[in-house]
Amino acid sequence: MNCSIGVDIGGTNIKIIIKSELEYKRYSLKTSDFKSGLILDGVSEFIIDYISNSIIEFVDIKSIVIAVPGPVVDNVVLFCVNLSWGKVRVVDRMKELLPFTTNIFCVNDANACLYSEIMGMEEKCVVLLTLGTGIGGAYYNDGIIEGSTGSVGEFGHINIDSKYNFKCNCGLSGCLETVASATGIEAVYKSKTNGFCLSCEEIFSAALLLEKNALETIEELYENLGKVLSMIALTLNPDVFIIAGGVSSAGSCLIDGIKKYYEKYSFNSVRDTKIIKTSLGSYSGAIGAMLYGEKKRKCIIKSKI
Amino acid sequence: MNCSIGVDIGGTNIKIIIKSELEYKRYSLKTSDFKSGLILDGVSEFIIDYISNSIIEFVDIKSIVIAVPGPVVDNVVLFCVNLSWGKVRVVDRMKELLPFTTNIFCVNDANACLYSEIMGMEEKCVVLLTLGTGIGGAYYNDGIIEGSTGSVGEFGHINIDSKYNFKCNCGLSGCLETVASATGIEAVYKSKTNGFCLSCEEIFSAALLLEKNALETIEELYENLGKVLSMIALTLNPDVFIIAGGVSSAGSCLIDGIKKYYEKYSFNSVRDTKIIKTSLGSYSGAIGAMLYGEKKRKCIIKSKI
Repeated sequence: MNCSIGVDIGGTNIKIIIKSELEYKRYSLKTSDFKSGLILDGVSEFIIDYISNSIIEFVDIKSIVIAVPGPVVDNVVLFCVNLSWGKVRVVDRMKELLPFTTNIFCVNDANACLYSEIMGMEEKCVVLLTLGTGIGGAYYNDGIIEGSTGSVGEFGHINIDSKYNFKCNCGLSGCLETVASATGIEAVYKSKTNGFCLSCEEIFSAALLLEKNALETIEELYENLGKVLSMIALTLNPDVFIIAGGVSSAGSCLIDGIKKYYEKYSFNSVRDTKIIKTSLGSYSGAIGAMLYGEKKRKCIIKSKI
Repeated sequence: MNCSIGVDIGGTNIKIIIKSELEYKRYSLKTSDFKSGLILDGVSEFIIDYISNSIIEFVDIKSIVIAVPGPVVDNVVLFCVNLSWGKVRVVDRMKELLPFTTNIFCVNDANACLYSEIMGMEEKCVVLLTLGTGIGGAYYNDGIIEGSTGSVGEFGHINIDSKYNFKCNCGLSGCLETVASATGIEAVYKSKTNGFCLSCEEIFSAALLLEKNALETIEELYENLGKVLSMIALTLNPDVFIIAGGVSSAGSCLIDGIKKYYEKYSFNSVRDTKIIKTSLGSYSGAIGAMLYGEKKRKCIIKSKI
């Protein structure tokens, strides 16, 4: 039996896909259930437990791919600001933790997500933006492009905001993710209400009910995202932008809102770039990771080519 | 005899390189000597005159490459805001104007410039920024990447400035080139002095003499460029940035000034990206255009690959 495992470690959830000829299982763990330094221990324990209680045997596991929210170079993640990770040799650590040997890879989470999205797409040049606990991104142009230090698509740390100038987990201030990730949206709302908190989902709902602070928060979100996409368009000029991550579940209003400001700020030659929502759900990162393991040879990841 | 001609049409000057086995000639014409719609007429007249007065014959001309400051798709430039050009079929028009047939191509000016820069460079992923009358850019990653609508590297129209919010030739406001091109630098200075004008070169000189308004103008320039490069780094993550164009002749202070702000705004994983000045002079666009004609097969221009 052939079994492939994809793991997507996010700031809030860890998604796991286990696929064999017999089954296709999806699991979600809470990241906060593990101490920062013990996340990989938790993942490997989960995998060992799962296999122990199934008909799958260790020898059936053909690949495990771990997607992480930070720049990855040669299977090593340089840091993950939203996991409080410094440099982690993910593959080496997983090999220590697992009682069996298999192919193990580490990839950037947004790259994994884009890898699952581009399957079946016609466009050849695609940029993905993931709006979750943090903000990541990826760029596909006849292969996923990683860049000099695995940092292509680290859009979350583009300096965009001077109004709130919130401190970012990365040490800088005014980064896109301080105002436009799920946590950023919540922080903007909180600053407008003198400390009253709502979750990101509740803020979108309140905006639908025309609550003033929520409406303002969402309008600023659209403007920041529209502006950043217009910058990215002048830099990468893709055929299409895909918006993914938890925040993308806010529905069509999100895409319409981003488009309004994208068009406002966009240079004529890129104004018609398509902006669409992910066609996959919250497991797209884990699915992409799993596919990456299965089809390693087909997935050209360009790094310092 | 084999003769290749490269032409770089800028907002201020038109640079022409004519190379044969016997000679290597450089010429500069003033763009303002021609009406917007008659620039190509002027270029073709110059070429015809030159050949008529040399030992070169029409049949010796193996290629003519015209570099233009705007997005190019399939030898057609979509528009050039700094030449007041709409869509121009440059190659078709040149064929009408010239009394002989040869290989004629049209390329983006920054792409031509980068094409001459990368000859002999070791780095594989390079971003070029041209600071001239306007601001352009180009991206090399195992070939020059043009993007969906020839707009990769149109950095001049990234929305960066909300302080002056000058109207840009492109119709938008707050574009990088309204504050950081040669004309942009002059406009910022003028707004600080209630209308007193200096040329870009004079402003750099005045800053060296510690004139307050000039110092402020140059400091704002460094901050805007440093910030934009930090954005581009998180998007393309190149090995190196090359600063070219007329403003780059300001010397090492320019690179040091940009670096100061680049490091301030840069995410950890891209903070060490090299920033260097062009190694070629003001003819690099024309040289790149000429080389493009000579080595067409070696120059992989990726467009909608």
